[in-house]
Amino acid sequence: MTDRGNFGKIDYISKSGKIVLTPIGIVHSPLTEDSKELPFQSFTSDIEGEIEVFEEFEDGLDGIEGFSHLFIVFYMHRWKATKLRTIPLMEEEERGIFGTRSPSRPNHIGCSTVRLLSREGRFLKVKGLDIFDGTPVLDIKPYVPRVDLVKGVDNDWLIKKLEKIRAKDKTTERDIQRHLKNE
Amino acid sequence: MTDRGNFGKIDYISKSGKIVLTPIGIVHSPLTEDSKELPFQSFTSDIEGEIEVFEEFEDGLDGIEGFSHLFIVFYMHRWKATKLRTIPLMEEEERGIFGTRSPSRPNHIGCSTVRLLSREGRFLKVKGLDIFDGTPVLDIKPYVPRVDLVKGVDNDWLIKKLEKIRAKDKTTERDIQRHLKNE
Repeated sequence: MTDRGNFGKIDYISKSGKIVLTPIGIVHSPLTEDSKELPFQSFTSDIEGEIEVFEEFEDGLDGIEGFSHLFIVFYMHRWKATKLRTIPLMEEEERGIFGTRSPSRPNHIGCSTVRLLSREGRFLKVKGLDIFDGTPVLDIKPYVPRVDLVKGVDNDWLIKKLEKIRAKDKTTERDIQRHLKNE
Repeated sequence: MTDRGNFGKIDYISKSGKIVLTPIGIVHSPLTEDSKELPFQSFTSDIEGEIEVFEEFEDGLDGIEGFSHLFIVFYMHRWKATKLRTIPLMEEEERGIFGTRSPSRPNHIGCSTVRLLSREGRFLKVKGLDIFDGTPVLDIKPYVPRVDLVKGVDNDWLIKKLEKIRAKDKTTERDIQRHLKNE
């Protein structure tokens, strides 16, 4: 068993065992604290916005126009609370946080797939945002079906729940309020 | 346009604008520096291993047994170099790093979907690993097809390339060496 404190010889992990990351960009989105509706996930969203990549990382975008969808890894900066159990959105029973998509998770890392509409220099116009305005972006990866599409998944119980959500396409007012209050 | 230095009122981002994260666990995998073969992505891997979640996060695993596949967010600790352009594995032409899955990316965040075989306390037995032994885990999310399966993706040129890889199911010796040398 690998020792807990030993991640190998890694100097970018601090002595405290923390990992220090640098945002590569920021999300410009109409979703703000005042938004009345919050898409549950990017698959329920038609919201358009921009991902601004900071100047020093612009070279990393070369050729990204060839991809129709991008996978965005971001830091959910609006969530300060960390909970290990929570009631998932649209559900009634509490579950461990790693069995949910709740933002109140340790490390507050969010992942969304968005459609790339166009690129202008270091600005990416995207559609399908479920990310708040001002969110720091940690990584952008191309979404590649052969890699990302997983077969043989068996979560029927959850699929049925999510189909109900999809039918509504939006979360209920109560759910949104709970979500925004970090409950 | 949001100001670059302003991510809102966020005290867990240091004054330097860095984001500080805490590993929630560690990967136990047969993939080491001495491994002769390295799966290109988890979809090409049948490798089994364990994800150890640290004690203080164990409550977050409650109910995770209900999911057949888990999405793992990890820190690729073996890659120290950051490059903004690279030649992707199995390709010939250089591209911006955000249009590739290369590990030499800023922030070195990796994402893989693995099959959950079983859970024993805070240890998750998983299959389909493409992650090195000792890798710090940042997050675990349930893989949910309705959320994660993106439709209408148009990357035909890349799919053709990846089908060639899938046919081989393993990367070539030269590619592996390049990969391990962080080239």
